[in-house]
Amino acid sequence: MSLRQPYLLFLGDAPDMLAAKVALGVKQWRPEACLGQLSMPGCKADLGLAEMSVGYAVSAGARTLLVGVANRGGVVAPSWVAVLKAALEAGLDLAAGLHQRLSDIPELAETARARGRAIHDVRSPERPYPVGDGRKRSGKRLLPVGTDCSCGKMYTALALEAALRARGRPATFRATGQTGILITGEGVPLDAVVADFISGAVETVSPDAPEDHWDLIEGQGSLLHPSFAGVTLGLIHGAQPDALVICHEPTRTHLRGLPHYPIPSLETVMEQCLTAARLTNPKARFAGASINTHALDDAAAAACLAEIEARLGLPAVDPVRTGVERIAEALE
Amino acid sequence: MSLRQPYLLFLGDAPDMLAAKVALGVKQWRPEACLGQLSMPGCKADLGLAEMSVGYAVSAGARTLLVGVANRGGVVAPSWVAVLKAALEAGLDLAAGLHQRLSDIPELAETARARGRAIHDVRSPERPYPVGDGRKRSGKRLLPVGTDCSCGKMYTALALEAALRARGRPATFRATGQTGILITGEGVPLDAVVADFISGAVETVSPDAPEDHWDLIEGQGSLLHPSFAGVTLGLIHGAQPDALVICHEPTRTHLRGLPHYPIPSLETVMEQCLTAARLTNPKARFAGASINTHALDDAAAAACLAEIEARLGLPAVDPVRTGVERIAEALE
Repeated sequence: MSLRQPYLLFLGDAPDMLAAKVALGVKQWRPEACLGQLSMPGCKADLGLAEMSVGYAVSAGARTLLVGVANRGGVVAPSWVAVLKAALEAGLDLAAGLHQRLSDIPELAETARARGRAIHDVRSPERPYPVGDGRKRSGKRLLPVGTDCSCGKMYTALALEAALRARGRPATFRATGQTGILITGEGVPLDAVVADFISGAVETVSPDAPEDHWDLIEGQGSLLHPSFAGVTLGLIHGAQPDALVICHEPTRTHLRGLPHYPIPSLETVMEQCLTAARLTNPKARFAGASINTHALDDAAAAACLAEIEARLGLPAVDPVRTGVERIAEALE
Repeated sequence: MSLRQPYLLFLGDAPDMLAAKVALGVKQWRPEACLGQLSMPGCKADLGLAEMSVGYAVSAGARTLLVGVANRGGVVAPSWVAVLKAALEAGLDLAAGLHQRLSDIPELAETARARGRAIHDVRSPERPYPVGDGRKRSGKRLLPVGTDCSCGKMYTALALEAALRARGRPATFRATGQTGILITGEGVPLDAVVADFISGAVETVSPDAPEDHWDLIEGQGSLLHPSFAGVTLGLIHGAQPDALVICHEPTRTHLRGLPHYPIPSLETVMEQCLTAARLTNPKARFAGASINTHALDDAAAAACLAEIEARLGLPAVDPVRTGVERIAEALE
């Protein structure tokens, strides 16, 4: 997988910023690769990049239109297809991490073929994975887990990779989702792996390593989310984490996509994740809390972090507001 | 996945009855769907059904030739292909749960296409499934869970379906694995579903039903098996069981395929399964224990059941030795 840069980030008709989290992640961790954004009518997401048509983007040097928006179920909205086709015709490659493959849409596949353009569907596994065997691997591993989906697990892992490297520790972010794969260029698209091979895929993506090396494994879903918990449990078992970080968005009232399910307490999620983690690593422990306080003002955020830190007896940080150095320090 | 019945059960050149255990299961649990059997020269298996050619079976009303035999490796023996092709030409669909897909054999795929017949390779999902939403569905549901894989969960669910029907209660076995699908003619091959859709697939296979109706949902894997627990957790969440049955093989010392993982206690498995089940059904409870005592003599089996019954305070049965009536009674 080798994507041509720079990107035009496609936001489609994203109903909110969370729906554009793929584009947000690429812009955050590879800003030099992001030339502009393309929104459709009704789009409620904005990355603060220059708004560009496909024609303008091509003339400005863009090489790939990256689909940075996802809706529930990961399908391609019919209204997007004309824009994606126009991008191919204008000379851009396409890259996406949706469940539905762009290359399975005949109109796009034919246009790409006719124009000699590439379509990268990074969510589709490119290789078979083995059944997990639960064998203890060398090296150290950290896994963020959440009280919900989309509450900062990937961001936390990427921030910890940077913080550990800044401290001179060997550390590698291991991508398990489409944004992480688009950012790093490799990884396993875990939610698209066949169910019997979830833990085996994670074992593969985080192999034996030197004893002082940390893998920062991208978290997925939540163990208490009725839609996706199977993915999360296989991830916990395959990751066999030495350290876990609890991720939480304190203003959310219900699970994403499920208004009939309230957000569980941090303590409940931590207890169940620890029970699961200790099946494959009896030494698993929590190393900190990563709280997404973007919806709070400074005073409320500080109070929130202090309250959670006192309650859990663990360093509580916001990766954006405070950085994750205190958790990196706790790993030593 | 929905197979046309009745079946002509294909026994091939099965060297013994064990090789025909899929056909045996279909005949045991769905005798009304079994019109006849077709053996090849050298076949040592006999279900006691009328021996039929494909032509005779079609004229007698058969709709599907079901491959009820498996050889080592789950491949299609070259000698079977001519018979399977003749079945398609005579007007039968084909169904199989082998590792090697019948539809990957060009001669069979082309014949099916030319004759307008279906080939059901039941290890592969035939449709996309939605993301699970955890919405409480009407009707009652029971799910067997195990201390390990392959310890009697499918047999227990089928036996409970029969026992409830014998008591005049509406009850439906819901298949989640290939043998169960071949037995009932429909279901979802859960271990082959894409990871994000595990719970959604189970919600689909066990839809809203009248309040007094029981779905007996086929269990898979084990919540404490590092290879397959993700499948099991998605199954528990999607099943939202009112009742669980703990399944156990008392002479096993380690998890199937993982000699470095001992079998967990019944209490540990039950506690963790109940915690998981209560996320989508707060009223979930255990209704009994189903113990596979085939490796014990009569006295040891009776002692084992008595010990577990006293320890758990739940009816403990062996579906083969004692039947499951006491659990069916406990469901009322």
